[in-house]
Amino acid sequence: MDLAGDELTDAVVASFDGSKDERTKTVLSALVRHLHEFAREVELTEEEWFTGIDFLTRTGHTSTGTRQEFVLLSDVLGLSMLTVGLGNKKPAGATQSTVFGPFFVEGSPEIKLGDDLSNGAPGQPCLVSGRVLDLQGKPIAGALVETWQADEDGFYDVQKNLDGPQNRGHLTTDADGNYSFWAVRPVAYPIPDDGPVGELLRAGGRGPMRPAHIHFMVTAPGFSRLITHVFAAGDEHLHDDAVFGVKDSLIAEFTEHPAGTAPDGRVLDQPYSTVQYDLVLATDEETRAL
Amino acid sequence: MDLAGDELTDAVVASFDGSKDERTKTVLSALVRHLHEFAREVELTEEEWFTGIDFLTRTGHTSTGTRQEFVLLSDVLGLSMLTVGLGNKKPAGATQSTVFGPFFVEGSPEIKLGDDLSNGAPGQPCLVSGRVLDLQGKPIAGALVETWQADEDGFYDVQKNLDGPQNRGHLTTDADGNYSFWAVRPVAYPIPDDGPVGELLRAGGRGPMRPAHIHFMVTAPGFSRLITHVFAAGDEHLHDDAVFGVKDSLIAEFTEHPAGTAPDGRVLDQPYSTVQYDLVLATDEETRAL
Repeated sequence: MDLAGDELTDAVVASFDGSKDERTKTVLSALVRHLHEFAREVELTEEEWFTGIDFLTRTGHTSTGTRQEFVLLSDVLGLSMLTVGLGNKKPAGATQSTVFGPFFVEGSPEIKLGDDLSNGAPGQPCLVSGRVLDLQGKPIAGALVETWQADEDGFYDVQKNLDGPQNRGHLTTDADGNYSFWAVRPVAYPIPDDGPVGELLRAGGRGPMRPAHIHFMVTAPGFSRLITHVFAAGDEHLHDDAVFGVKDSLIAEFTEHPAGTAPDGRVLDQPYSTVQYDLVLATDEETRAL
Repeated sequence: MDLAGDELTDAVVASFDGSKDERTKTVLSALVRHLHEFAREVELTEEEWFTGIDFLTRTGHTSTGTRQEFVLLSDVLGLSMLTVGLGNKKPAGATQSTVFGPFFVEGSPEIKLGDDLSNGAPGQPCLVSGRVLDLQGKPIAGALVETWQADEDGFYDVQKNLDGPQNRGHLTTDADGNYSFWAVRPVAYPIPDDGPVGELLRAGGRGPMRPAHIHFMVTAPGFSRLITHVFAAGDEHLHDDAVFGVKDSLIAEFTEHPAGTAPDGRVLDQPYSTVQYDLVLATDEETRAL
């Protein structure tokens, strides 16, 4: 049993023949085949192998309860976006999905339509509104809309030492499917690049920036969950998003206005922005039919 | 720029176009292509993706100064053996390479020919001897032979709380290329399987055992370094080595003898074993010519 090249790969694949679970066997076997194909194609050297072991080890050591460096690695290699695409096929007309990201937090504050959830976060006030609709354009009343985003400095609340949440909350749509809230106008920001993933980006000649965006997760009984962003039109990083999350259909115009009375009647003594974006959900049945 | 499927992969590959180093670009691009092909082939689910993130994170957290769980992962996926094969092609007649393993320690004790390096490790005494030769069968005098191995309980010294080394040392061949030392007869043992890699083996229906073996690293001026094992003939795990390291040419007979006088004149009041194995090195030139 002198195992070399393909024989070695075959032997490793065969070693999983006794898997209790057929899916486990399929996934592990495919993982081994593609991993070996990679190593053979580039003729991976022992020094490069060691660099890889060291990189993965440090990526593990950088991952803590509040920072997930392996998610970041998956993001910058496009694996997260690929997995999102495989698992969230949407019918034509439905709002498309994009990456979930590492900054969602369970148990965000509940707000009423039109409330301000910025909670003192630095940034220009921004009125975010729209409707949650089904594929036929009918409003979905009572849909749960969760939202979160970074502030003007490019930081999410969980990246700062705060007592409470900022730019994060959830609400329920009204009878006409409306949602609306005040947050701050989002800006482009770098993903955390002081760890191994930052080294990878620099070695690969890449930047760490993500274009300005607001996160949404929308759920309603009978409908497939939607996890997405709304991106700001005109952002200079729409074409080099570090995590490959941009889709044209998710880009919306953020319009700046001078101080004055906003569409919802709020009086502002400083410039503010507004953005409108309708979130369209497919039913479970429409999704299954794909 | 709606990136899906192959377009997404192409975009991630293209993102490395600015790499400062051509090899970096080659390796990262190939890594992304094969990683994406894997995910697409198995239609990786978001739940499986999360399982993978969690597995890698725990593998990182299990890796410490004295335990390298990512090396172990590479070993059980056959990647270590594949990389060894790619980087250590040997001409016909030379002793073949196998995995280095995680238990080598720099600065082992220097011994003289025939010394006992077991240092009190439990196990049957075993006289290990042979010659270091070139491809023409001529002895290589002054070759540095480093050796390390587990004890009768399957543990290397570094896995136990000891003050000094056991079953570990280095010596220099004499004018006739001879090496010899006393250690203990090696036994089959499980790789550490109380961490994530152990979970993987169990999920894959695999065992953790390695067949009995002695590690060697041999260096001599003008010759290519040899890193290998000598395996014990008849071991029941020669055909399911957890790390795929066995090669037929590396199997040798360990012969048991009753108490008495060993070939080197040592008198033993208990049964002992002997094994002889010649280690054949290729010159740098012969290796480069491959």
